[in-house]
Amino acid sequence: MTIKVLGYAAQSASQALAPFQFERRSLRNNDIVIEILYCGVCHSDLHQARNDWGGSAYPMVPGHEIVGKVIGIGPNTTRFKVGDHVGVGCMVDSCRDCQACKKGLEQYCEKFPTYTYNGVDRHDHTVTQGGYSEKIIVSEDFVVKIPDSLDLKAAAPLLCAGITTWSPLRHWKVGKGSKVAVTGLGGLGHMAIKFAKALGAEVTLFTRSLGKSEDAKKLGADRIILSTDRKQMESVRGEFELIIDTVPSAHDLNPYLPTLGLDGNLVLVGLLGPIEPFLHTVPLLLGRRSVTGSAIGGIAETQEMLDFCGKHGIVSDIEEIKIQEINAAYERMLKSDVKYRFVIDIASLRSEAV
Amino acid sequence: MTIKVLGYAAQSASQALAPFQFERRSLRNNDIVIEILYCGVCHSDLHQARNDWGGSAYPMVPGHEIVGKVIGIGPNTTRFKVGDHVGVGCMVDSCRDCQACKKGLEQYCEKFPTYTYNGVDRHDHTVTQGGYSEKIIVSEDFVVKIPDSLDLKAAAPLLCAGITTWSPLRHWKVGKGSKVAVTGLGGLGHMAIKFAKALGAEVTLFTRSLGKSEDAKKLGADRIILSTDRKQMESVRGEFELIIDTVPSAHDLNPYLPTLGLDGNLVLVGLLGPIEPFLHTVPLLLGRRSVTGSAIGGIAETQEMLDFCGKHGIVSDIEEIKIQEINAAYERMLKSDVKYRFVIDIASLRSEAV
Ligand SMILES: [Zn+2]
Ligand SMILES: [Zn+2]
Ligand SMILES: [Zn+2]
Ligand SMILES: [Zn+2]
Repeated sequence: MTIKVLGYAAQSASQALAPFQFERRSLRNNDIVIEILYCGVCHSDLHQARNDWGGSAYPMVPGHEIVGKVIGIGPNTTRFKVGDHVGVGCMVDSCRDCQACKKGLEQYCEKFPTYTYNGVDRHDHTVTQGGYSEKIIVSEDFVVKIPDSLDLKAAAPLLCAGITTWSPLRHWKVGKGSKVAVTGLGGLGHMAIKFAKALGAEVTLFTRSLGKSEDAKKLGADRIILSTDRKQMESVRGEFELIIDTVPSAHDLNPYLPTLGLDGNLVLVGLLGPIEPFLHTVPLLLGRRSVTGSAIGGIAETQEMLDFCGKHGIVSDIEEIKIQEINAAYERMLKSDVKYRFVIDIASLRSEAV
Repeated sequence: MTIKVLGYAAQSASQALAPFQFERRSLRNNDIVIEILYCGVCHSDLHQARNDWGGSAYPMVPGHEIVGKVIGIGPNTTRFKVGDHVGVGCMVDSCRDCQACKKGLEQYCEKFPTYTYNGVDRHDHTVTQGGYSEKIIVSEDFVVKIPDSLDLKAAAPLLCAGITTWSPLRHWKVGKGSKVAVTGLGGLGHMAIKFAKALGAEVTLFTRSLGKSEDAKKLGADRIILSTDRKQMESVRGEFELIIDTVPSAHDLNPYLPTLGLDGNLVLVGLLGPIEPFLHTVPLLLGRRSVTGSAIGGIAETQEMLDFCGKHGIVSDIEEIKIQEINAAYERMLKSDVKYRFVIDIASLRSEAV
């Protein structure tokens, strides 16, 4: 018995998002039914709605920073009860059997994870639909608990922007005394600063506009380096063990590489596309530096991050919007005019569903 | 009291190498005097003689794959005695005080190591001159022992081509059961195959010409993949933990990245310059793959490699030449017409020094 839900969908790459009625699958034994309360608005929602990366299927209901309340549980579930506050991020399933899945790195599943929207369900082959909607049904293995201490709407962006920056910080063992730099101060970048700081690192923000200094310091940055200023860049030569590069568009990586120390890594978390201009190899060879990438994070790691956030009172800085404002929000995002993440109050959607 | 030695030098970027008389410094307390017996011919000799990378100073005596016999020792030396067979590689000094030096990674010295030729001595500020010469004087801390079991002339290329491929194999912990690929079958590539095999790895050679299959198998490769054949490349998708890329000229890295598994590294050891065409980030993000670089190796590590070679009977495959043939050898190197390293018999130089 499927359930009818209202969402906001793109009907094509060129159309604005608009109300869309669709069906969620009937409950499987391992499933949780979630009443969605809030959904963060990720850059990839916009890119996929507009088919910027190719491969978009329509109608598409975006949204993968989902926070809600459990309103139903399948007979074989064990981890949640009705009323629990839970989250769903970028994935709702994976093969569960490959080396990556076995290591809890479902995001790197060799057969690719099932994405929360614009994905294909592994069992019934229907297209998955995301969190700009009233309800979602997800296998409990891909559902995480939201700690009670967190503001639900401000926690939503943790499910993508949060875990995407948390995972590389943890993988490359950032902790007390680490020296970390962050490039880009948006949804991802502001979380990278908060996490790196909370993990005990000394945190530097690379920026092209000093106007962001005050904000960055409030978020926890110890130092701001103007990346267009040669002298400032020279002053941090060999300084960092890790650079979390959250910039989503093509940008020159060459000025940043010499600021890494021996064995340092520049980790791309926001850029999908060619590295332009050409990357020069000399800083790589003369310092064993790496350019690497990282994608979201595993489910267990996401829970670990949420628990850490609960303990340290970390959430995203957000602007709450109504679902009816989503298309305007996309336009503002294209101008980086948001501090630092839009979150949709799904109650505004429910009011449309008469 | 300086000593006069004969060498072969480039007098400018455009001139062929020719006999050149010059002086070696007087013995310092920590120095070893080495009578050079053999010197390998590295691609960087050619590039620096011709100022391909800029920064060349003339006259320049190239050569940093030096094997010889100790003929003198400074009063404060402890590790060598007259008659010992020793080697000198790409470096003859470093700051000895930075984090890298303290870790035995002198090649990454924060103040840059003193290179064996076309470098500047840290004490007297004279230009260093390399191994295409009769004798060299080097601090004993930058001299390594050549195991008795090794053929001296075939051991010479271990000092650069050898350590350059050994170091990343060890740093990324290649051992029994590792799956390693090598790109490029020249001086570096053929050593990478030998070492990876001897360390217990399953070794694949990526090549653009199947003509090299037989040779690669003799060197220890378990498998040859034609990198221009999509089907063959697809057959090794996600296969390797490490690719040692020895190709010295710009080449497309994009086809190789998907052949790395989760957390795999493509290590550049031969390319100094831009990565052309543009590197695409998707394989980096969706698999946490890295593109990284590695430069030669530290002194302790070089000794470790030589000891391993002594134990396993590993040397380079070489073509012995006379110093008078060096310019012709350079031309053949430019056509990759050498299996796999030219080594100069320095006796041929001595016969000129009447
Ligand atoms: Zn996202
Ligand atoms: Zn899997
Ligand atoms: Zn060399
Ligand atoms: Zn040093």
